Amino acid sequence: MSEHAPIDQAVAQAAEAAPLWAQASIEVRATLLRGLASALEANKEALIPLADEETHLGAVRLGGEIARTAYQLRGFAEHLEQGAAHTVVIAEAIAGTPPAGRPPLARVLRPLGPVAMFSASNFPFAFSVLGGDTASALAAGCPVVVKAHSGHPRLSRAVFAIAAGVLAAQGLPEGLLTLVDKASRGAGGYLVQHPQIAAVAFTGSYQGGTALWKLANERPRPIPFFGELGSINPLIALPQALERDSAALAHTLASSMTLGCGQFCTSPGVIVLLEGSASDGFIGQLRDALAPIQPHPMLTAGMRDGFEQASATVAANAATLLASAGNAAAPGPRLYEASAAAFIAKPALREEMFGPAALIVKAKGLGEIEQVLGAIGGTLTTTLWGANDDTPANRALVRAAENISGRVLFAGVPTGVAVCAAQQHGGPWPSSTAPQTTSVGYAALERFLRPVALQDAPAWALQP
Amino acid sequence: MSEHAPIDQAVAQAAEAAPLWAQASIEVRATLLRGLASALEANKEALIPLADEETHLGAVRLGGEIARTAYQLRGFAEHLEQGAAHTVVIAEAIAGTPPAGRPPLARVLRPLGPVAMFSASNFPFAFSVLGGDTASALAAGCPVVVKAHSGHPRLSRAVFAIAAGVLAAQGLPEGLLTLVDKASRGAGGYLVQHPQIAAVAFTGSYQGGTALWKLANERPRPIPFFGELGSINPLIALPQALERDSAALAHTLASSMTLGCGQFCTSPGVIVLLEGSASDGFIGQLRDALAPIQPHPMLTAGMRDGFEQASATVAANAATLLASAGNAAAPGPRLYEASAAAFIAKPALREEMFGPAALIVKAKGLGEIEQVLGAIGGTLTTTLWGANDDTPANRALVRAAENISGRVLFAGVPTGVAVCAAQQHGGPWPSSTAPQTTSVGYAALERFLRPVALQDAPAWALQP
Repeated sequence: MSEHAPIDQAVAQAAEAAPLWAQASIEVRATLLRGLASALEANKEALIPLADEETHLGAVRLGGEIARTAYQLRGFAEHLEQGAAHTVVIAEAIAGTPPAGRPPLARVLRPLGPVAMFSASNFPFAFSVLGGDTASALAAGCPVVVKAHSGHPRLSRAVFAIAAGVLAAQGLPEGLLTLVDKASRGAGGYLVQHPQIAAVAFTGSYQGGTALWKLANERPRPIPFFGELGSINPLIALPQALERDSAALAHTLASSMTLGCGQFCTSPGVIVLLEGSASDGFIGQLRDALAPIQPHPMLTAGMRDGFEQASATVAANAATLLASAGNAAAPGPRLYEASAAAFIAKPALREEMFGPAALIVKAKGLGEIEQVLGAIGGTLTTTLWGANDDTPANRALVRAAENISGRVLFAGVPTGVAVCAAQQHGGPWPSSTAPQTTSVGYAALERFLRPVALQDAPAWALQP
Repeated sequence: MSEHAPIDQAVAQAAEAAPLWAQASIEVRATLLRGLASALEANKEALIPLADEETHLGAVRLGGEIARTAYQLRGFAEHLEQGAAHTVVIAEAIAGTPPAGRPPLARVLRPLGPVAMFSASNFPFAFSVLGGDTASALAAGCPVVVKAHSGHPRLSRAVFAIAAGVLAAQGLPEGLLTLVDKASRGAGGYLVQHPQIAAVAFTGSYQGGTALWKLANERPRPIPFFGELGSINPLIALPQALERDSAALAHTLASSMTLGCGQFCTSPGVIVLLEGSASDGFIGQLRDALAPIQPHPMLTAGMRDGFEQASATVAANAATLLASAGNAAAPGPRLYEASAAAFIAKPALREEMFGPAALIVKAKGLGEIEQVLGAIGGTLTTTLWGANDDTPANRALVRAAENISGRVLFAGVPTGVAVCAAQQHGGPWPSSTAPQTTSVGYAALERFLRPVALQDAPAWALQP
């Protein structure tokens, strides 16, 4: 038996289930999504301790994450019922239009087929077995082959078993959701290159994501690859905001930086300030707010090591304002400072520190802040504090932020991504391999549909 | 001066014009598109002979193509006025939703920035300087850097000069449309890797397109690449259709195969028939309809050579039913035949013959036809003659066609692509590098927009 036989079997099951699921009614799909949400909630007493053992994220956060994951599954069900997967654009026949008269055309949406989904380490529920990628792919009509994350293997199997029970209870084929775990080396690459896989959804590191993206592009027939990779999430705090309430803002920012031990793709990693006394005061308040915080242990020993390496790289190129060592399992908060000129000149300062750390970048003016954003180039979020007035300078700053970001915030912090139809989680490279799509919110469903034009088609062929 | 200095200059002009054009009103953009359409029409008496000299496509076809190109420019203007580039999805704030309550969010669309557009050889107007890619990118708010096709350099310069006149007359920056011609070797690769280029639109050969696509992916920051590459466009003629009117269908198919000397991306290259007397009769009629046709000269000597090589490859693996040599400038029609089993087994039979030729594939049953479609894997179009009745067999066939195609036709021929909101021109690889997008029809505009979520934004920031 080949070392990849379990993957072959999982994909074969998914491929077999694909035609049936592509044709399943909205009602059947929505019922599955709601069934999965309820089953997850019904088992939370057992799942939370298991997840905490494997991830150290704490019961409160994990309970909240189950609520979010269930909310998201039900949200996709509602979105489906509003017609999201079945938009039809009709063009009636018109004689004489160039080039050759117009035949009757209907543009329909069809599911891509089996989706390989790579779970993330840092959201053991919301970006794992029953997370957003699975919910959106199932809603679109695509079976999902889950590559379990090695950081929470027992939880993955437990959630998968719950999902399998829901499929069985609803009389649906088990191939709609299959799990690849205890995987051999090279399993991820084998999965993305499997001929029957039609698309890939990935959430994780830049290194892991780009390696798989390259393998998907090296297929004889490349397929869509939706990868959400790293992001440094600049937060620009202008004097106008700081002069109003800098102590409260410093506490808010310190909480966002250290939330989940900084292990969020939206964690604010670069704080951009204008030179001046308001900024200097804020830096002191931020350092004071951070200093006493001891975050919970990191997800894995590998990520603990990775954070030390990443912060050492920044420290070698910047001044250190705070460097709490923390303990063996969890680093303490870190704060560094560099000039905008140095930030723009040194790519090492633009690398993500995945953990409770940020780099303060001091700029001489708004023009230099725009250059800082240009150097970042691609990020999930940019936050602008103090840019609410309608001035030419603020408009230019907002444009610079929009150019590089999937989401631009005018208040609050980027951690905590709302699940709704207006969300956009994905920005220019490297934050996403597909910056015109989102991996959070209901538009995520569109990633797994492809338009097909039906010309001179009989009415029955237009049905989903 | 670097050999690529003209490219640097063209891109710099485009980048300088980008912010202004991103903020231009719908009215300003629509006025430009309509102005370009009118200028093209006003100059057709001069442009048609020039185009004919360089492409040999004939005055009738070229006049029709100008009409189509102008129609398309005006169509994008109308589509813009209907709000296509400015969809806003609003999510109001809701307290208490997971994970952290919902802030007010608005999902807006923003133009990507300067687009590098590679003209096609076979549509010197409709897929060239002022063709669909230029129209859709300008409509979306993106300046366009046109890489002229070496097959019609003088026409490209003439059309560009007309467009430059319209820009000047409307007081718009010349950077909105720049031309790269007389290009040095490696110019295409240099252009797609230029740091200020934000997206690429390409129509042309598989070899040329994949080479540029790879270069775009090797950028430090890869960008969206919208490539419309080769396609073999299977046409399935079932006995139910043939028994009704096979002589007329044979003439229709012969015309479609030889139209423009077969130099269409939608030219039907594979004719799939069921074994039996109806198919045998149709083959004879098709051969008889093709034999007397002498197409006009091919676009370039290189394409003439390429067609001989491609048809020789097929001939080496299939029976030859008709092989009219034609003349030095233009081949005569060619018709080959192979079994479905051979077609599925031999990749050489699935290569595109860009010219007036098709391969007949004979299948033993509908199941084998579905396997033939599976082996093709990706194509712009599939045509199904005789599959209009609502039967399980026809439903399965339509699904198999939808799985591999951007457009599925139930009547008529695939050449002649209607420009409308319901069109989809682009299918799974290799027909498109971005199969979820279209390069013809008004949805083409979406390729050049990126969603951005604005959180807690002041009202002025939501404006386009």
